Amino acid sequence: MSRITVFDPARRPRILAAASAVGGEEFHGPLGPLFDYHDESDRFGADTWEHAEGALSHVVLSLALKRAGMDHREPDVLFAGDLENQCVASHEGLGSFGIPYCGLYGACSTVGEGLTLASLALSAPGGARVAAVVTTSHYCAAERQFRTPLEYGSQRTPTAQWTATAGGAFLLSRDRGEVEIEAVMPGRVTDAGLRDPGNMGAAMAPAAADSLLRYLEARGEGPGDYDAIVTGDLAKDGSCWLSELLTKEGVLIRERHFDCGTLLYDYEKQDVHAGGSGCGCSAAVLAARFFPAIARGEMRRVLFLATGALMSPSSLLQGGHISGIAPVVCLRRREGDV
Amino acid sequence: MSRITVFDPARRPRILAAASAVGGEEFHGPLGPLFDYHDESDRFGADTWEHAEGALSHVVLSLALKRAGMDHREPDVLFAGDLENQCVASHEGLGSFGIPYCGLYGACSTVGEGLTLASLALSAPGGARVAAVVTTSHYCAAERQFRTPLEYGSQRTPTAQWTATAGGAFLLSRDRGEVEIEAVMPGRVTDAGLRDPGNMGAAMAPAAADSLLRYLEARGEGPGDYDAIVTGDLAKDGSCWLSELLTKEGVLIRERHFDCGTLLYDYEKQDVHAGGSGCGCSAAVLAARFFPAIARGEMRRVLFLATGALMSPSSLLQGGHISGIAPVVCLRRREGDV
Repeated sequence: MSRITVFDPARRPRILAAASAVGGEEFHGPLGPLFDYHDESDRFGADTWEHAEGALSHVVLSLALKRAGMDHREPDVLFAGDLENQCVASHEGLGSFGIPYCGLYGACSTVGEGLTLASLALSAPGGARVAAVVTTSHYCAAERQFRTPLEYGSQRTPTAQWTATAGGAFLLSRDRGEVEIEAVMPGRVTDAGLRDPGNMGAAMAPAAADSLLRYLEARGEGPGDYDAIVTGDLAKDGSCWLSELLTKEGVLIRERHFDCGTLLYDYEKQDVHAGGSGCGCSAAVLAARFFPAIARGEMRRVLFLATGALMSPSSLLQGGHISGIAPVVCLRRREGDV
Repeated sequence: MSRITVFDPARRPRILAAASAVGGEEFHGPLGPLFDYHDESDRFGADTWEHAEGALSHVVLSLALKRAGMDHREPDVLFAGDLENQCVASHEGLGSFGIPYCGLYGACSTVGEGLTLASLALSAPGGARVAAVVTTSHYCAAERQFRTPLEYGSQRTPTAQWTATAGGAFLLSRDRGEVEIEAVMPGRVTDAGLRDPGNMGAAMAPAAADSLLRYLEARGEGPGDYDAIVTGDLAKDGSCWLSELLTKEGVLIRERHFDCGTLLYDYEKQDVHAGGSGCGCSAAVLAARFFPAIARGEMRRVLFLATGALMSPSSLLQGGHISGIAPVVCLRRREGDV
């Protein structure tokens, strides 16, 4: 059981508070009213898209700290990452809090990696008492860096996803909060030989399938043991491929599967092609939609598979592939004081 | 003590094996004979510098596994990172091992962040039994990405550092190995307002000073409690600035201070300006020079401060700064079975 860490039920890490912030497009989607903060201009007071993402990360951690009634000096460690080169949005936006910092790169899966490592840091004897996790993404910064600047007006293919301008922050504690982390499992790097930067879902679906099958087998469980199986940002096409891959293995999740990238936008009214993606997509939707549902007891046990496409533009130009990864976090409503 | 994790002496994480690999310039430096593997061409069998770094990461983990007599299926988790955008060298070079993967970005300090998180993962009840840490850097890939491609023949300033073509791998265990990890502490992001990509030492020295002072104060210790205080890659100028910053606070380390970036090259014969830098610099020198010295009992207690300059070329063009970070790892010879 060492690849999956199942925490002692009496000492599970707990999520004390979560906060979310989004841009205009995300605010106008079906989850709009659930987000804690939005900026219609996507600028968050900054003068470039890259700096806007840093400002977004600062806003979202400030909101989570306020909700927890916590001073910025209280978290012992901060796990953070984003999609910009050198994860610059995170350390520029969050450095001024002065919280000991661990930078992560898990592409769009970073919030899952962060929750995993924060949980381990809280569980280690002598480790952190309070840990923060923050991840963000920004549509305009991501398009410029990974594909083409928006000003070029490139055509997007039907499988292309819309990198969410969004961020989520979580504060984890050893002894406070209604949502517990029951188990965590890091993902493996899966390489299906893909090379299309307009089709991230295809790169992530095999990773999600690999992680879900390994997880369920190790725990001796099936999808029916969960109220919801939530993937990060497979979007419309990736979700179908995950369903196909799992069906081949006799695992059926469709009726309890939710995908953050699919939930974020209104496909009828918004021109987002396959749906949402990005570090901030799964983080904001987890913070705004699923975390409160678990805290209120509407869902009792949720399996969260953050999904990431490890895509490097320079490697693609050199013949490299787009790998995928999907860390797993099992969340549950705390029992006893419901 | 929650920002510094001091492990229970009976249950300290242990480093079972380490391995290093370097390019030609590093092999011709004073530490050359200590490295486990070198490639005079810096290509490691690959056709681009970026892919060469991936190949280097694969070689160095293979060597560490061989030294430990360990199959690639044994590590429960792998912490890895490098300097390439999207940390692509690490997941491309290491993904095929199939080890559950956590990607890190701590710039040149990544090996310190990796050892910190691996130690916490081993200590958490139900956590990993064996963890791997791998970091790499490549001179030609880094110059092209962060400054200018080598073909441009740009002039380098005296404070410029030479990103090492190097990598280090460490295998950590709960119950095997002569070198123990006594304590770990994540670094804080320090922003001294610097903007010169030809002077990384200036950005890292304040971070190293911040971490060392916080660490020594929290533990009630002084530099004299250590056989060596080893910084990652401050190089010649950064080491002087660290010394000045500490002297102001009444802390004198000079006689026991070693810097991996300063040790790696021969300043008389090699044109490396201020000295070495990079994720792989501190990892390879720790693996080849200090880890064996501690394992043999020549050094009993060593404080390792990996240093990183969180430099983003795109942020610099937008008026951003180069921040620094320096996680701390306290290493010691295992007692009892010496």
